[in-house]
Amino acid sequence: MILVMSPEATKEQIESAASQIESWGHRASVTIGEEQTIIGIIGDKRDLAGRALTAISGVEKVLEVSAPYKLASRHFHPEDTVIDVCGVKVGGGHRCVMAGPCSVDTYDNLIEIAKSVKAAGATMLRGGAFKPRTSPYTFQGGGEEALKMLAEAKKETGMPIVTELMSEKDIDVICKYADVIQLGARNMQNFSLLKEVGKLGKPVLLKNGIASTVAEHLMSAEYLMSEGLKDVMLCLRGVRSYETALRNTLELAIVSYLKTHTHLPIIVDPSHAAGKREYVMPLAYAGWAVGADGLVIEVHPNPKCALSDGEQALLPTDFDYLMKKINAVEPWSQADWAKQAKKV
Amino acid sequence: MILVMSPEATKEQIESAASQIESWGHRASVTIGEEQTIIGIIGDKRDLAGRALTAISGVEKVLEVSAPYKLASRHFHPEDTVIDVCGVKVGGGHRCVMAGPCSVDTYDNLIEIAKSVKAAGATMLRGGAFKPRTSPYTFQGGGEEALKMLAEAKKETGMPIVTELMSEKDIDVICKYADVIQLGARNMQNFSLLKEVGKLGKPVLLKNGIASTVAEHLMSAEYLMSEGLKDVMLCLRGVRSYETALRNTLELAIVSYLKTHTHLPIIVDPSHAAGKREYVMPLAYAGWAVGADGLVIEVHPNPKCALSDGEQALLPTDFDYLMKKINAVEPWSQADWAKQAKKV
Amino acid sequence: MILVMSPEATKEQIESAASQIESWGHRASVTIGEEQTIIGIIGDKRDLAGRALTAISGVEKVLEVSAPYKLASRHFHPEDTVIDVCGVKVGGGHRCVMAGPCSVDTYDNLIEIAKSVKAAGATMLRGGAFKPRTSPYTFQGGGEEALKMLAEAKKETGMPIVTELMSEKDIDVICKYADVIQLGARNMQNFSLLKEVGKLGKPVLLKNGIASTVAEHLMSAEYLMSEGLKDVMLCLRGVRSYETALRNTLELAIVSYLKTHTHLPIIVDPSHAAGKREYVMPLAYAGWAVGADGLVIEVHPNPKCALSDGEQALLPTDFDYLMKKINAVEPWSQADWAKQAKKV
Amino acid sequence: MILVMSPEATKEQIESAASQIESWGHRASVTIGEEQTIIGIIGDKRDLAGRALTAISGVEKVLEVSAPYKLASRHFHPEDTVIDVCGVKVGGGHRCVMAGPCSVDTYDNLIEIAKSVKAAGATMLRGGAFKPRTSPYTFQGGGEEALKMLAEAKKETGMPIVTELMSEKDIDVICKYADVIQLGARNMQNFSLLKEVGKLGKPVLLKNGIASTVAEHLMSAEYLMSEGLKDVMLCLRGVRSYETALRNTLELAIVSYLKTHTHLPIIVDPSHAAGKREYVMPLAYAGWAVGADGLVIEVHPNPKCALSDGEQALLPTDFDYLMKKINAVEPWSQADWAKQAKKV
Repeated sequence: MILVMSPEATKEQIESAASQIESWGHRASVTIGEEQTIIGIIGDKRDLAGRALTAISGVEKVLEVSAPYKLASRHFHPEDTVIDVCGVKVGGGHRCVMAGPCSVDTYDNLIEIAKSVKAAGATMLRGGAFKPRTSPYTFQGGGEEALKMLAEAKKETGMPIVTELMSEKDIDVICKYADVIQLGARNMQNFSLLKEVGKLGKPVLLKNGIASTVAEHLMSAEYLMSEGLKDVMLCLRGVRSYETALRNTLELAIVSYLKTHTHLPIIVDPSHAAGKREYVMPLAYAGWAVGADGLVIEVHPNPKCALSDGEQALLPTDFDYLMKKINAVEPWSQADWAKQAKKV
Repeated sequence: MILVMSPEATKEQIESAASQIESWGHRASVTIGEEQTIIGIIGDKRDLAGRALTAISGVEKVLEVSAPYKLASRHFHPEDTVIDVCGVKVGGGHRCVMAGPCSVDTYDNLIEIAKSVKAAGATMLRGGAFKPRTSPYTFQGGGEEALKMLAEAKKETGMPIVTELMSEKDIDVICKYADVIQLGARNMQNFSLLKEVGKLGKPVLLKNGIASTVAEHLMSAEYLMSEGLKDVMLCLRGVRSYETALRNTLELAIVSYLKTHTHLPIIVDPSHAAGKREYVMPLAYAGWAVGADGLVIEVHPNPKCALSDGEQALLPTDFDYLMKKINAVEPWSQADWAKQAKKV
Repeated sequence: MILVMSPEATKEQIESAASQIESWGHRASVTIGEEQTIIGIIGDKRDLAGRALTAISGVEKVLEVSAPYKLASRHFHPEDTVIDVCGVKVGGGHRCVMAGPCSVDTYDNLIEIAKSVKAAGATMLRGGAFKPRTSPYTFQGGGEEALKMLAEAKKETGMPIVTELMSEKDIDVICKYADVIQLGARNMQNFSLLKEVGKLGKPVLLKNGIASTVAEHLMSAEYLMSEGLKDVMLCLRGVRSYETALRNTLELAIVSYLKTHTHLPIIVDPSHAAGKREYVMPLAYAGWAVGADGLVIEVHPNPKCALSDGEQALLPTDFDYLMKKINAVEPWSQADWAKQAKKV
Repeated sequence: MILVMSPEATKEQIESAASQIESWGHRASVTIGEEQTIIGIIGDKRDLAGRALTAISGVEKVLEVSAPYKLASRHFHPEDTVIDVCGVKVGGGHRCVMAGPCSVDTYDNLIEIAKSVKAAGATMLRGGAFKPRTSPYTFQGGGEEALKMLAEAKKETGMPIVTELMSEKDIDVICKYADVIQLGARNMQNFSLLKEVGKLGKPVLLKNGIASTVAEHLMSAEYLMSEGLKDVMLCLRGVRSYETALRNTLELAIVSYLKTHTHLPIIVDPSHAAGKREYVMPLAYAGWAVGADGLVIEVHPNPKCALSDGEQALLPTDFDYLMKKINAVEPWSQADWAKQAKKV
């Protein structure tokens, strides 16, 4: 970290700030500029985490040098993490497609969806049993009944189950059925939940928060990993912006940014980002092209009767069409480009 | 709600959409415009919550007419809610000031803060024992030890305790010590937690989410209230924007918007919004002037050694200065203005 | 448009609002709901543009039904607009790639870039002569000297010239050299300039504003078109968000949204969106895959010495690599999907 | 500025980066940290403006130390600028209230407004003659006829005129009538216009852009000042956010931030921020309380017939009520607080 001293800071303030840093066990390197002095802090920044460095007399601002995440960083773990979910691999060149209904409603719908998405090429089945809803008056999910249907569908199709965990009190029931635990946007910074889930050892699909930064998303992965978990997939579902034409805003260049900065697999969720069936498909296609390690897509045979998020559900025929297109496109590989590129 | 049909919608699609609405038990009122047809839906919108109306053939978009919250709405409860916290009243013209350290660290610091803010005019003591932190490597709060210190400070000063609950598993220990349960920005949409807290009967200070809308904030209050709770204070702590000059962005006109649309007390948190001691004070002053029912302010005698958020902590002398200013200003009253105003 | 009356509106207020609407020459269609009454306004909304409908007594809010743009709307012009720039076609299945330096600096650099991008497959040459810069202390563009170099490069390579116009006073000099007039983000709502440029008859590349909505972007196209211009390309360069990992945020699903709502060609600018060479390429690739009608990409042989935006410039070898990848990918076609899809 | 080298940067890259900096005439100060090396650049950063420092091999990112604005900075000009507009002073403890219609429509309305706002305590008359409108189909302003009416009203009331300039071609006509030239949100980064207006010598009211940062707002003032102008007022009218409850979002703590960082007067525009009459008033009151040097407020006797922005216009009676309240409140003074505060 770097302390930028105010242009008005006195010699005494500069010396006192440097002493303060050294009293905390770090080295201070002072550079006197034409207008302002800066003090480089040398040492493990985690030891200073939470210190109010701007409250030191004469300090104007604090600049961050290194990333706050370590376990999730590619710098400390250069090889791609490859996650194995009941034999389905994700990461390191292995790509997956998770598909299914937003909310599990009836077994007939679920099995129709599961069979059709499998036939089209999906490799995991996603379906919601516990649903975070903005309104207490909307459908809150089918609970364990829905999980049992997912287990049935898994038996029928062989596809592993991805389903959302919303609360520490549901950990046992979710673990009984889920192969991948999904943590949703609203729980990305539910730190109590992250700490518990980090201990379970099950692969996690961690969605970004509704207005999280990329760095915060990585820090939430770091919470999971600091409890011992290795198998974390980062899922991009877009963020809130002022634009109302689409549900959310998903910048696909973040996939490349993340592939550069972390070894964890990156999954794109076009359904929640685009929010409307006709825009979900091209965004899924572009997400595949940009080089994501996987997609998670909502599918329902009768969207207008779906119990949640029907407006963004693909029909099984849409999904089939999309998969055919996806199979014909070569995903961008940042590693391939890097091989031929040389920095100026 | 209103269905706006696409300009390309056929007569059959319009009739079929109207029938679909009526099959769900609502009345459909069709208005044929020059370019587009609209269908008004008459009935309790909560019965349609979650229905994918835009997935109906020919529908271009859905417009909301009435607010999705009922229990929190001033329309259904015109009188201000007045909350009594151990004799300290909030709402309906009663204003409060909650003050204290972001994190409780030592008892000496706590009692110094508590006594000085009380002397300056604070009416409740806020202090954190369980802290939501972006990084797993930062101080996570003092836990029950910190709560015990708060209890001691309450005994000494008589001020009721406001402290944050982060997880369902801490409900018992928090309830043992807290007079007001604070729910933080990251848990505003932790719906499992909201449902449990709504059953406890204790007053709640509900902060807005880091990028929540005013309507979502009210819907989270609605979650608490739909479990039977009446005593909810809405706390504004600003939202995330692209601006980096300040920590967050707090639009004070939202206080007036909320006073118009809900009967619940509105509390302004200038500390997390402004994020730096020198801007916290004028924002607190403006928040009082605009007519909030209360303020919640972080105070620490030695900010650079505070275990969290020291850069935004006021010194006790700052707080004293602020309270003197506040006591001299007359808060804006929307009700007083309304009395003399007549709509054009 | 629809007036939503307040739940507290009286019968007199409702009748008076309806009369007011009719006094302005429109029809009012009143629907009485369970909680609130709505009044549909039938007639050309453009006649009411700017009227303060919410200032009518008893009105709570106004909802928009139809789009405010007409000339740019696909509803009124179902076929794709195809623009011919000196023989290079854009739109209606014709795709283009515009490439060149952010700022024209030396003729040697320019001609090297022009020849290499042409060899790689670019079809137009873009280069800046007048530069909008946040700081008055940075390079402001080479002016007419730079335009002359562009003209030379056009003579050498045959590629038409795309260059930015910043001010009405530069119209003559720009028109002397430009084949496509670029209007930048900061001028998207420079309405005086739009009105003048709309009269020139030259094709325009209209970038979205730094925080414009899709609807505002279309309304600025409407300004150009209302002066008689037909050849408008909408260029997406991302918008501002709170995220700092990348320069801007570009949601590619907006390409599909625009292709659905307008007949104008859509161009993606990955350089300004991603802001860093290594992320520009995958975003360009994804932008091509999602179905844009063209790309505009910054290229420079020695980025660290470029006079502006060097950090996002591709090397000529990068550009060549990108073009090979692009040529192998089939762009998504919303029209092809629509043919096989049927709405539920 | 500081170059942060990548953790993977080699010794050669670090040395080469330092040499590159020195070859541009600056000194490079290298600090080797535990994970990453930083290079402090010593010298006038304006000489490096626009250089693509991140395109230097091995550089991960560039951190800014000092502010990019100089003429607008309080550091280089500690005393408040006081502007004299025909005898009305603004800044340095002098506060002003500018009031009038959004668009000038009829002379009768204008003179009624002017007389009533003057009686209530306004000190300048603002009124629009050239209007920037999102849609080409809405009222674009009364032009010189409207300016003539303003001149009449000035003669009647003695109040100086504030009116918006939208285009370089209107400079002559605006200068003939205006005492303060208003530059609107959409033109905050119309750099051609800023350069011309900076030469005129007339006081300017510079509104922030729809999504500008505070630093960009100051840089646009710097454009005006770098042409010789001294009399610039910064006007805060809120920025765009995802919130739809109000028109824009105005963080009043920015007033204090600006008062700390610049010597220029700060004006608050509650009308465009709040966007609705009932929220404009409390925001104006809070803006006064927080310590702004002035307010600019829209007033109209018959808002529903106003030709623009009627929904946010105050009635003359509202304005009178507001002024009485404002006159009773003591504005926050950051300077007074600083006198008694001592940094920890």
